Amino acid sequence: MPLAEKILAGDIRAAARLMRDIDDGFESAHDELKSLYPHAGKAYLIGITGPPGAGKSTLVDQITAEYRKRGKRVGIVAIDPTSPFTGGAILGDRIRMNRHADDEGVFIRSLATRGYLGGISRSTGDVALVMDAMGMDVVIIETVGVGQDEVDIVRMAHTTAVVMVPGLGDDIQAIKAGILEIGDVFVVNKADRPDADRTARELGAMLDMNVRKDGDWQPKVLKTEASRGTGIDLLVDEFESHRSYLFGSGAIDRFMAEKCARIFMEILKERLFAEVMMPLRADGRFDCFVDDLVGRRTDPYTLVDTVLAERAAIREE
Amino acid sequence: MPLAEKILAGDIRAAARLMRDIDDGFESAHDELKSLYPHAGKAYLIGITGPPGAGKSTLVDQITAEYRKRGKRVGIVAIDPTSPFTGGAILGDRIRMNRHADDEGVFIRSLATRGYLGGISRSTGDVALVMDAMGMDVVIIETVGVGQDEVDIVRMAHTTAVVMVPGLGDDIQAIKAGILEIGDVFVVNKADRPDADRTARELGAMLDMNVRKDGDWQPKVLKTEASRGTGIDLLVDEFESHRSYLFGSGAIDRFMAEKCARIFMEILKERLFAEVMMPLRADGRFDCFVDDLVGRRTDPYTLVDTVLAERAAIREE
Repeated sequence: MPLAEKILAGDIRAAARLMRDIDDGFESAHDELKSLYPHAGKAYLIGITGPPGAGKSTLVDQITAEYRKRGKRVGIVAIDPTSPFTGGAILGDRIRMNRHADDEGVFIRSLATRGYLGGISRSTGDVALVMDAMGMDVVIIETVGVGQDEVDIVRMAHTTAVVMVPGLGDDIQAIKAGILEIGDVFVVNKADRPDADRTARELGAMLDMNVRKDGDWQPKVLKTEASRGTGIDLLVDEFESHRSYLFGSGAIDRFMAEKCARIFMEILKERLFAEVMMPLRADGRFDCFVDDLVGRRTDPYTLVDTVLAERAAIREE
Repeated sequence: MPLAEKILAGDIRAAARLMRDIDDGFESAHDELKSLYPHAGKAYLIGITGPPGAGKSTLVDQITAEYRKRGKRVGIVAIDPTSPFTGGAILGDRIRMNRHADDEGVFIRSLATRGYLGGISRSTGDVALVMDAMGMDVVIIETVGVGQDEVDIVRMAHTTAVVMVPGLGDDIQAIKAGILEIGDVFVVNKADRPDADRTARELGAMLDMNVRKDGDWQPKVLKTEASRGTGIDLLVDEFESHRSYLFGSGAIDRFMAEKCARIFMEILKERLFAEVMMPLRADGRFDCFVDDLVGRRTDPYTLVDTVLAERAAIREE
């Protein structure tokens, strides 16, 4: 039986296997995803991002608990930063979310960020799709950092929460400015720290400076203390408010169109590249190209012109 | 006269214009880059990265001054994080490097990170190539952050310095682990702060744990106080040591082969994608695809299959 069928029948191990195939970039995963696609689209995707040390894992743990209390099944996709050279996930097999280990209503998957071939935002989207098709009501996507990768990832979520922590100082002004536009909700976690109120006020002031049209969503700043579970119910209420706004205002239509366009383009880009690179590698031409480039006997733009012209010539024959 | 010719004749304004074209993704830039390529390859590229607030700009300023003292011409490419939604550089037209404003031996260019179409690492490489062809002896590439984008960018440099700052606490453990492998030199800046020694010791201890083969480069941890210019001469000496190692040990051959391969693949990926997407956009099919995806009448993998099959069919006609 194909994996997709098993997954739709509730087979957790089949789901885990497909997610591993996705993370490893196996082509066989494509057919399974095709089969799952019509069964997805019901889950509500929440993105959680912010600098390292903001307490995101604990917060995700608490949000999960709150959604479980409300009777929802929760999937979690945690993106671990990858060591660029070894290819392994830096945080490795960290033990996450022990309290949910025996809860069948929670499904957790860590993804390593591979970079280069096969964008991480695409594999994150694919894993979220599997969780969606499995019947998870809420899928939480947790990323570390505020780079372009993280922006691409959280853009896939219906609602994005940016988690800050008091006391990082004025140094993070640049980061703050960058994330103002991706957050639908802002969370000042570790709110027991002395300068939590100041951080929340500053964030609020920056948000107020952003001019919004009437009817646009106005992000709020909420304070939490994830380690004690303080403020979590209000945070989840705020997620639900944003969800109501999205679907009630019609903003969901534009969101879905942009998201679908991005996903299509990413897959197209990867597949086209693989299609052209494979024969170049197989017949050793790629190695010759590199030799010529290192020796400066040609330049990369001319080489790409050559490869594209050959493909066009074959088409016109 | 083509821009490339003017640039090789020393025309600074032509260089600035080509760099703007590169940043804006103009196709016309390709031909100019082809002409410049044989004239480049002499500059020594230094990558500087680290978290926001580590004082990288000031450090780059001081390194520039030190290289100027040593009689070298210096190009600087500063990557500003871009607002993902407005597309503008977050730090805007910040006034950088005033002290070098009247120095013809220094050329500074800020790039915005565009993301998505046209990788930032490619345009950074192209701008560095222009500076190289202009006759800059040293090109410094400054990025903010430690994500995949930054890794891709600094990988283009011969020597990468990772700048840390004391007192960020244990929270950055994850980041530290990620950057250990990309740094050839580690800098603890703001060394006047109380816990500078501790940070330097910890970094050194982590580096010692990395097993290296005999003859491999062993990165050092240096302390600087960029605002006062302390430690800069030793840092530049260390850059030069790494450069001697690279060229003396033959490690440069593998470095150049990997770099050339990456650049070729990036350009190929972009051009292939543009070639296929343009007609799809022009005839309105892309919009139909998005409609079908939003309506879940098809899935992105099947659509990409269709597009690729059509291209193969045209080729076989």
